[in-house]
Amino acid sequence: MLSKLIVEPGKSARLAERDPADQLGLGSKEEAEPRRLELLSELFALQDRLWAEARRSVLLVLQGMDTSGKDGTIRHVFTGLNPAAVADAAFKVPVGAEVEHDYLWRVHAVCPSRGEIGIFNRSHYEDIVTVRARQLQPKAVWSRRYRHVREFERMLVDEGTTILKVFLHISKEEQRERLQARLDEPDKRWKFKLGDLDTRKLWPDFLDAYEEAITETSTKWAPWYVVPADHKWVRNVAVASLLVDTLRALGPRFPAPAEDLTGVQVVY
Amino acid sequence: MLSKLIVEPGKSARLAERDPADQLGLGSKEEAEPRRLELLSELFALQDRLWAEARRSVLLVLQGMDTSGKDGTIRHVFTGLNPAAVADAAFKVPVGAEVEHDYLWRVHAVCPSRGEIGIFNRSHYEDIVTVRARQLQPKAVWSRRYRHVREFERMLVDEGTTILKVFLHISKEEQRERLQARLDEPDKRWKFKLGDLDTRKLWPDFLDAYEEAITETSTKWAPWYVVPADHKWVRNVAVASLLVDTLRALGPRFPAPAEDLTGVQVVY
Repeated sequence: MLSKLIVEPGKSARLAERDPADQLGLGSKEEAEPRRLELLSELFALQDRLWAEARRSVLLVLQGMDTSGKDGTIRHVFTGLNPAAVADAAFKVPVGAEVEHDYLWRVHAVCPSRGEIGIFNRSHYEDIVTVRARQLQPKAVWSRRYRHVREFERMLVDEGTTILKVFLHISKEEQRERLQARLDEPDKRWKFKLGDLDTRKLWPDFLDAYEEAITETSTKWAPWYVVPADHKWVRNVAVASLLVDTLRALGPRFPAPAEDLTGVQVVY
Repeated sequence: MLSKLIVEPGKSARLAERDPADQLGLGSKEEAEPRRLELLSELFALQDRLWAEARRSVLLVLQGMDTSGKDGTIRHVFTGLNPAAVADAAFKVPVGAEVEHDYLWRVHAVCPSRGEIGIFNRSHYEDIVTVRARQLQPKAVWSRRYRHVREFERMLVDEGTTILKVFLHISKEEQRERLQARLDEPDKRWKFKLGDLDTRKLWPDFLDAYEEAITETSTKWAPWYVVPADHKWVRNVAVASLLVDTLRALGPRFPAPAEDLTGVQVVY
């Protein structure tokens, strides 16, 4: 799974050539469901070891257009994990003390502790992609952030964090349907904002900005994965699978007891 | 003052060739005192503008051997400034959540806000110099931190912070006298720790570690200055002078009122 979705460091992300409706050979939604449950069960076991070990951390960065399924991915992949060992952070428009510091300040502050799996629902990539697509800052400002971000992530990795960056790739038509559903279905209407329609008009600008940002920041130490996200069941299996592969490669282990416990009995 | 004390980026710090007892042509302590007061007065005026402007920040990083005068420098250069606009952070041995994250996590968290002058009494350089001199981590760990630190500081500078790094340079004989004074004078004894004598035995290791760290991290965007610190009055004038030069170069200005106030009167 990892090798098909990765953006090879030094190569272009080629988003236009990646099909958002790809089913990754998973068959049907019904066939994929047991696969998802199996992955979650393994994820649960691996998380337990990572937490007990308390030496390293994992950081999942989720980016994607509006309605690409960032919230849904978190709900479907992380529900059932031990919340004590999950650090979830959602980044909205910066306010207050956040704007009084550099853009990485609020991000660094909520990076996962040793033993934790951190999830970034949006991230420092907004400070490149959104800033560029909305023309909030001149090119001189956002373009030098590629380097900042590569080096910031390098430091995190050197110091014990494994970073997994996922772009949830949906088609413009799929976004249309999902936005319409938010308008039509009473339980989803709370998620709809009129501003989303303005953002949708900037679709090509955001896509260009993502294309370049992913290309510039997919590194050996923190690669990007482009996950086809038109089918939610494909997306969920893909992200769970990426996480399991990442944790397996880390191979966390329960630590040995600090003292020799041979023959020790707990008495009444 | 800046040009004599700077460690030129790309060149060796050559600490052994820099005289800790250098008086920098300041004459005597008595002659230097009016100079210090003049500098503090200008610093006060410049700080006021930086704070009112609230766009940029200044960060003074103070490093040096035990007894080199980090605390004294802060007391003598910053007393009299508006404390609302000064952010002072002292870094001790990391504990708790600090060790559960990368070493820059606690440092980034207390970087100055826009408008502030930040002071680091010790800093992320302890994670290179002390870690190396005390052999707390293998070379593979501390040596890659040169790059982390250069890039971290580059990001801070790109995003609006001016960084001034000062190494307070004392001689081993001066340290002996100051440690002895801490033992002998009742008002200073609270500062003495027996561990300081063990650290003193590592003097050559710390000096080598500083020499290399300063050489590796004196950059165009965040240069190091080596301040002769055997004479406290020289040290105080030098640091105040470096700060004033830095702030003058920034040229902070009171912001224009947001609205046209011509003819506006405040009535009873």
